[in-house]
Amino acid sequence: MSNLIIAQSGGPTAAINATLLGVIQKAVTSGKIDKIYGALHGIKGLLAEEIIDLGPMMESTENMTLLSHTPAAALGSCRYKLKGDPEEYGKIISILKKYGAGYFVYIGGNDSMDTVAQLSKYCRENGIDDIKVMGAPKTVDNDLCETDHTPGFGSAAKYIATTFAEIYRDISVYDMPAVTIVEVMGRHAGWLTAASCLAGINGQGAPGLVYIPEIPLTEEDFISHVQEKLKETPYLCVAISEGIKGPDGVLYSEKQESKGTDAFGHKMLSGAGKYLERLISRDIGCKVRSIELNLMQRCAGHIVSATDIEESKLLGQTALDRALNGVSGEMAAIRRVSDKPYKVVYESVSIDKVANNEKLVPRDWMNEKGNHVNQKMIDYLYPLIQGECNIQYKNGIPMHFTS
Amino acid sequence: MSNLIIAQSGGPTAAINATLLGVIQKAVTSGKIDKIYGALHGIKGLLAEEIIDLGPMMESTENMTLLSHTPAAALGSCRYKLKGDPEEYGKIISILKKYGAGYFVYIGGNDSMDTVAQLSKYCRENGIDDIKVMGAPKTVDNDLCETDHTPGFGSAAKYIATTFAEIYRDISVYDMPAVTIVEVMGRHAGWLTAASCLAGINGQGAPGLVYIPEIPLTEEDFISHVQEKLKETPYLCVAISEGIKGPDGVLYSEKQESKGTDAFGHKMLSGAGKYLERLISRDIGCKVRSIELNLMQRCAGHIVSATDIEESKLLGQTALDRALNGVSGEMAAIRRVSDKPYKVVYESVSIDKVANNEKLVPRDWMNEKGNHVNQKMIDYLYPLIQGECNIQYKNGIPMHFTS
Repeated sequence: MSNLIIAQSGGPTAAINATLLGVIQKAVTSGKIDKIYGALHGIKGLLAEEIIDLGPMMESTENMTLLSHTPAAALGSCRYKLKGDPEEYGKIISILKKYGAGYFVYIGGNDSMDTVAQLSKYCRENGIDDIKVMGAPKTVDNDLCETDHTPGFGSAAKYIATTFAEIYRDISVYDMPAVTIVEVMGRHAGWLTAASCLAGINGQGAPGLVYIPEIPLTEEDFISHVQEKLKETPYLCVAISEGIKGPDGVLYSEKQESKGTDAFGHKMLSGAGKYLERLISRDIGCKVRSIELNLMQRCAGHIVSATDIEESKLLGQTALDRALNGVSGEMAAIRRVSDKPYKVVYESVSIDKVANNEKLVPRDWMNEKGNHVNQKMIDYLYPLIQGECNIQYKNGIPMHFTS
Repeated sequence: MSNLIIAQSGGPTAAINATLLGVIQKAVTSGKIDKIYGALHGIKGLLAEEIIDLGPMMESTENMTLLSHTPAAALGSCRYKLKGDPEEYGKIISILKKYGAGYFVYIGGNDSMDTVAQLSKYCRENGIDDIKVMGAPKTVDNDLCETDHTPGFGSAAKYIATTFAEIYRDISVYDMPAVTIVEVMGRHAGWLTAASCLAGINGQGAPGLVYIPEIPLTEEDFISHVQEKLKETPYLCVAISEGIKGPDGVLYSEKQESKGTDAFGHKMLSGAGKYLERLISRDIGCKVRSIELNLMQRCAGHIVSATDIEESKLLGQTALDRALNGVSGEMAAIRRVSDKPYKVVYESVSIDKVANNEKLVPRDWMNEKGNHVNQKMIDYLYPLIQGECNIQYKNGIPMHFTS
């Protein structure tokens, strides 16, 4: 019998707690784990020995059910990258040993998988084989390699598809030309922005143009695409990633820098959507507005994807299961076997292939002009937003897990 | 037997179609209406004779159920104020007569109630007593007089409360001081912003500061309130109305004007939230971000308030019912009889008391400092967000009514 420490890291999602639940469930049912600890605020909290016994939290079944779809990390998070300092590695190992932890599961995105990579390498190189370090993926951005997709992405995609459908209805009530630009998260990868197209899955309104960071966009092309689309419809919705850039590599979100300062003397940076809004205003002159989905898209626990929540839980279970089988330095992952019917298997993959890599949208999943998705993307995205969780409401708002 | 024309106007909401459904239901069950027409794009569409027979639309019961919580105006909308021109009045009347309409129900906000007022006055003054003109209220802003609250407000309030609860969870995962400003709709009235406080109804996170347009705010007070709150909690959420202003009456959203132009030579106007974000950045220096709930707050059909949808339907029924009883120039309204238990009655009120008036938040529903709500506001808001509708999903996103 050995103990387990779990931690969460990186940007919150609506599914990261489902993975936490999965790890806990596996720990309980395996019969091989004695105490289950949580390190608060990720590896930073572990280093500071902010460690709590998760036992009391697990006493209420109702509360644990709420945990599966309560947004944001229940154990807190951090944005902390290990510095490659052997002393720091040693400190982490000594804290894990102090708590009798034979297993450490770290749930997070790119930076967190780098932590898993560094830590497991340190153990390997120093003959520490009684501590298994495993990663469980998480990121709304869906940019982790070696896994078909990542926990949190499906729920964010469902929120985005639903919200675009609602925004489209809102903007289509007037009969005059208007462009609505909606900015979606994604600095380097356009997965979330692509998900906006699912708004049209029932034959209703969806974005007419979709721009992702992977495909450079000139201002001239943008204006000409918009003008073309406005000939087909008076209400045009344009989906853009926050990280779209020009052929010169300059981010649209940083283009504001060119002129002017705000009332406090700072450079005015107001995002890619705002920039394109002003561009349309100048070059086309029609009504135009820009909207950011901001934090809402990653924390909308009230409209999670049941597929995402279930898979996130299973990935947590897989991570610990593999560790219990002696594996270390890997990340639990999903491999897709088929689209129709949707079928996946759970496995674990070498962390070195995951850490510090990014999975971008393949060029041939977008149309030729690079301003919309094609069927390959739709087939990929479709299964990930399927299914609804039974959200419990109290006093008119969704109930959340309480620690 | 006579015919009926219905139209919708003003900004979309998640409940305006429930009112449309209520009017249709009353028309069908009354046995006193022959044909039911819809004028597309409000009074503007009526003037252009964009009139459709709603008969075919009503054939599918399933579709009509979807209508009740499909966001945005199914008949389209307009922002068109009658110019007080007798010729225009005459044209409207002649079109109503051409379609055999003895009843015209206009669903909308302030401007629409002004249309009802002008039109019914014209009828009264010109002895036209075979056309009854009635208003049905609608506005997320909740700023119509003579009714306890307005359709669409409860659903927007439910979305806002839910979203603030989720945002709070998101921002509270890190352990460093951070301020998150969330900008809510409301140019003159702070009702929607006040609804953010319901996020804390289950004892969880809610905004620590709440600013509404009714109470002028100095920059000094704002900074001192934020500093004070940051002593209590590292994660501070601040709710503001888009229309907050200083004691000089200048809108925070227009303060950017003082310096600089964008890359296109235009004045930089980026909203009250952005301005306050920069102010905190300069004067406090902690992490700060601002978020706008934008269109999402008024069109979130997937999380409507069942109370709001039911009341909206009943207001539509009431409007036509009163017209069928010979009333003209009034607006259907809700009178609250008690908070606990929540009890309302449906009535109609003189349109002249409604048109061109605004119902603002009473000063004594906010705390002494003017930076948060008090119990009076909570008691008022609480019943309006209660209950959930059974939203039907297809292919992973909510189904909408199709015309």
